Amino acid sequence: MTTPAHFTSQALGLAAQALFLSNPNPRVGCVLVAPDGRVIGQGFTQQAGGPHAEVVALRDAAAAGQDVRGATAYVTLEPCAHQGRTGPCCDALVAAGIGKVVASIADPNPLVAGQGFARLRAAGVAVEVGPGAAESRELNIGFFSRMVRGTPWVRLKAAASLDGTTALHNGTSQWITSPAARADGHAWRARACAVLTGIGTVLDDNPRLDVREVPTPRQPHVVVVDSQLQTPPDARLFMAGRACYIYAATQNDDKKAALEARGATVVYLPNPQGKVSLPAMLRDLARRGVNELHVEAGNKLNGSFVREGLVDEMLVYLAPTLLGPGLGMAHVGPFDTLAQGLAMDFTSVERVGPDIRLVARVRGRDAF
Amino acid sequence: MTTPAHFTSQALGLAAQALFLSNPNPRVGCVLVAPDGRVIGQGFTQQAGGPHAEVVALRDAAAAGQDVRGATAYVTLEPCAHQGRTGPCCDALVAAGIGKVVASIADPNPLVAGQGFARLRAAGVAVEVGPGAAESRELNIGFFSRMVRGTPWVRLKAAASLDGTTALHNGTSQWITSPAARADGHAWRARACAVLTGIGTVLDDNPRLDVREVPTPRQPHVVVVDSQLQTPPDARLFMAGRACYIYAATQNDDKKAALEARGATVVYLPNPQGKVSLPAMLRDLARRGVNELHVEAGNKLNGSFVREGLVDEMLVYLAPTLLGPGLGMAHVGPFDTLAQGLAMDFTSVERVGPDIRLVARVRGRDAF
Repeated sequence: MTTPAHFTSQALGLAAQALFLSNPNPRVGCVLVAPDGRVIGQGFTQQAGGPHAEVVALRDAAAAGQDVRGATAYVTLEPCAHQGRTGPCCDALVAAGIGKVVASIADPNPLVAGQGFARLRAAGVAVEVGPGAAESRELNIGFFSRMVRGTPWVRLKAAASLDGTTALHNGTSQWITSPAARADGHAWRARACAVLTGIGTVLDDNPRLDVREVPTPRQPHVVVVDSQLQTPPDARLFMAGRACYIYAATQNDDKKAALEARGATVVYLPNPQGKVSLPAMLRDLARRGVNELHVEAGNKLNGSFVREGLVDEMLVYLAPTLLGPGLGMAHVGPFDTLAQGLAMDFTSVERVGPDIRLVARVRGRDAF
Repeated sequence: MTTPAHFTSQALGLAAQALFLSNPNPRVGCVLVAPDGRVIGQGFTQQAGGPHAEVVALRDAAAAGQDVRGATAYVTLEPCAHQGRTGPCCDALVAAGIGKVVASIADPNPLVAGQGFARLRAAGVAVEVGPGAAESRELNIGFFSRMVRGTPWVRLKAAASLDGTTALHNGTSQWITSPAARADGHAWRARACAVLTGIGTVLDDNPRLDVREVPTPRQPHVVVVDSQLQTPPDARLFMAGRACYIYAATQNDDKKAALEARGATVVYLPNPQGKVSLPAMLRDLARRGVNELHVEAGNKLNGSFVREGLVDEMLVYLAPTLLGPGLGMAHVGPFDTLAQGLAMDFTSVERVGPDIRLVARVRGRDAF
């Protein structure tokens, strides 16, 4: 017999299909189950501006000629009660005659949390909250971060040899890890709202920082930390149809104009040291709808993120080679005691082709 | 139905029980199966000087009153034909009336390989060779190395932060990894014939280098690379009942006498640079019966092992912390191209408590 827990799992599976798709909206899945236990409709959140999971599931049922009156809707996030680009999902569920909603977790936005449930209950719909809460939150860790903390979830990516070297003394780093690891890295870029790098990497490597190695319906935005506005207007990261944010500390109208002509948005956010204020930048990115920020930068900028306590998670690929001294993952320290190190917990360990992929979460950072 | 493959697996499982026990003899298991398919005896190689697996299994059957005539012996290595401390196993099998021997692999010693099989066949015992060959060789990679290459299997152990730092600039390294990882490391010491370190580590940390965190019936020998014979006679690594080999480059009769008074064996093996010749030391250790050599040394000595092409495998524990620049796993390079790195293949990835354990094998080193 199919159990309610199974329907929640199915809804979470659908939500995961929105991983590369729904940004900056959360990844949500919905399963409609008839009173006799048959699944009669399902869906997941589409691209921003497109329908939410509940509406997709209702349309799916309608297209199949299914009667959804009295059905239970398993949905991985509280249905919205506000008039966004697509109309409130609560109203659509009520209008369709849904009898019960089983939601994994309340909306993390403190300004609207609970309003969807209240609206449903007021219309006579039974509401249960909780099944799959942890999984749904984890799938939307960036959305929850933006809504609750007002900053993106910051994931710092590095590719290194087994002994932690990310580049040789002469700067050589292409390619320490395998094509399989690089493709996997592109999948992590694809789930992010934005990919960030520093001006050093732009000038040294002129990277595109887009998603090429895995299919994706959208490209993440690109962000450059560029205190002096040195990004060349012909840098390869400028691409049609992709937002580019350049954070600077020193005003320069000519350079700003040249970069804006390439489609970039230039934002001045200096700190007292004349560098870009990284905390202010994160708040600004959150205001612009960035949930997960994927950082692929050099040793120095990585070190600044770590030192300022801004890293939530590390995504590290290790290749089975020893390269000896060179550039490391993040220039922190030098420390005098081990306790000064950045304490993390490994949350995932996988083989990716010949390499290893480790995900480590900074201790305490997901407690929001 | 129990299949022949199952009996071989069972014999390999028995062999693995000799992991901490049988050094320098190989880890061998034996299962005796009656013509009706019942297991009537089993055993694994005991401590050096004790009975081999075949004899243990025959005694096991005898103790249970089982008739082994016509039985099949599944054994993970060619039964010995020579008169060692325990008498040839071939003769014992023949005398007991065993009808067939299924052996995983021939003895790696080129001087005796095949003699056991020939002796069995000459006595009318059917012989099949091959099932479980790869597993048996892997379990005895050090014994095969010593017999075929004349050198031990060299396993270099390191404990580091996620970014590859094994000690801070001020030398602090206790403890980067967890108690769970240290206990696991002791299990790897326990399977080795000898644990090696350098004089720098002896002087800095005064380690015992014994097995304390896991139960073991024997302690590995200890080896110190100590060009100038600076090991203090009161170093903690001297222990009753454990062999200690000190390799030096500069003769000093007084220091030698003081160390020998502590039970050490001092061996002079200088190279033209006035350091200990590591290749000559490995050959000498093999002559002394060292199969697996477990190296727990500092950055510099590790670097020498790597540079001289003497490392077969790395055993690395990574803790979920970032420590920034400090001392690395092995001082090699600086390299100008990535191709100069030490190419390996990951053979094992496991979580150990909060840490990660990686085993990486140097490419091509196990092809002997």
